[in-house]
Amino acid sequence: MDTKEQGYLTFISELEKLKAVTRVNKTVDGRAENSAEHSWHTALMAITLSEYAPTGVDILRVVHMLLIHDVVEIDTGDTFLYDDTGRDAVAADEQKAAERIFSLLPPKKASEFLSLWQEFEEGKTKDASFAKALDALQPLINHPLTRGEGEKIKGVTTSKVITKKRFIKEVSPQLWEMAEDAIERIREKGIWLDQ
Amino acid sequence: MDTKEQGYLTFISELEKLKAVTRVNKTVDGRAENSAEHSWHTALMAITLSEYAPTGVDILRVVHMLLIHDVVEIDTGDTFLYDDTGRDAVAADEQKAAERIFSLLPPKKASEFLSLWQEFEEGKTKDASFAKALDALQPLINHPLTRGEGEKIKGVTTSKVITKKRFIKEVSPQLWEMAEDAIERIREKGIWLDQ
Repeated sequence: MDTKEQGYLTFISELEKLKAVTRVNKTVDGRAENSAEHSWHTALMAITLSEYAPTGVDILRVVHMLLIHDVVEIDTGDTFLYDDTGRDAVAADEQKAAERIFSLLPPKKASEFLSLWQEFEEGKTKDASFAKALDALQPLINHPLTRGEGEKIKGVTTSKVITKKRFIKEVSPQLWEMAEDAIERIREKGIWLDQ
Repeated sequence: MDTKEQGYLTFISELEKLKAVTRVNKTVDGRAENSAEHSWHTALMAITLSEYAPTGVDILRVVHMLLIHDVVEIDTGDTFLYDDTGRDAVAADEQKAAERIFSLLPPKKASEFLSLWQEFEEGKTKDASFAKALDALQPLINHPLTRGEGEKIKGVTTSKVITKKRFIKEVSPQLWEMAEDAIERIREKGIWLDQ
């Protein structure tokens, strides 16, 4: 095996650790969802909902972003979307983590993966915006399927959710219609604090 | 929300269930690996190892196949690779499951997903062969990272593994070199029965 193949194998082995990074969201069998299966769900959503992507979006790039968007959590753990202080604090650590993890790859691939991860983080390009909209939509679909009636998620109010998620509407009106439908189900089940 | 959006939402909701389908393989934190996180790992391997794909392979199609290849297990559960009787028995059920689950999608997408899943199952096209090679390589990389010294996997011998996996060599010599390296680590740890 040459150095390049060794690099790939080290990176692919490192990915195993993302399956052990848990999120606030749950699964239908009552576990905490992990960042690897969440990433699978969002990547498959990108392919499934490709017709709602804005013109010019490259679905393979979007899928690539979504498959790697949480890999940094191997080093930092997941930070809850509604923990604003935590999210600011972790940004520099996530950058370091991205540099460490992607540099396990052969140099050319390492640059490509790091730059794609940064593009997702910045969320400014068409591809990154569509990826971020899918990443924001997935938990909304997940909540009513995995939470009991009246089971509150600590610190999460409807108004906070709307503030964080309404950018979806600018990216894709159809994705926003799905988000609104999911929000309605969540409210009916009384999962968020009303405010 | 229109009927089409409703279809997409129903399909995406159904996918939640794959996170509760467990496999014989384990994770680094000692759980049984589930089919959703396994699918994530293989899809990201397809993008990572794209330079080793045979000429003419379409990586987006390969990634799509890998993201959906185990979705039928929502209805059938996972069948262990080395359980040959079980695998023959489950084939018809998997076909029914594919028809049920993909038909939740709007009709055009339903046909596209079903046909891609069947192409993967048959494993005859270039895209399907590369996808199948990655699906076969992932557990080899997983075993030495998640099993203890001398921890045997029931019914699995080195010769059975080689028989099932040597097709990887025909698909991509570089993937086979990685497989051989992983097999060597597994043997050093005494995870398979020697035969």
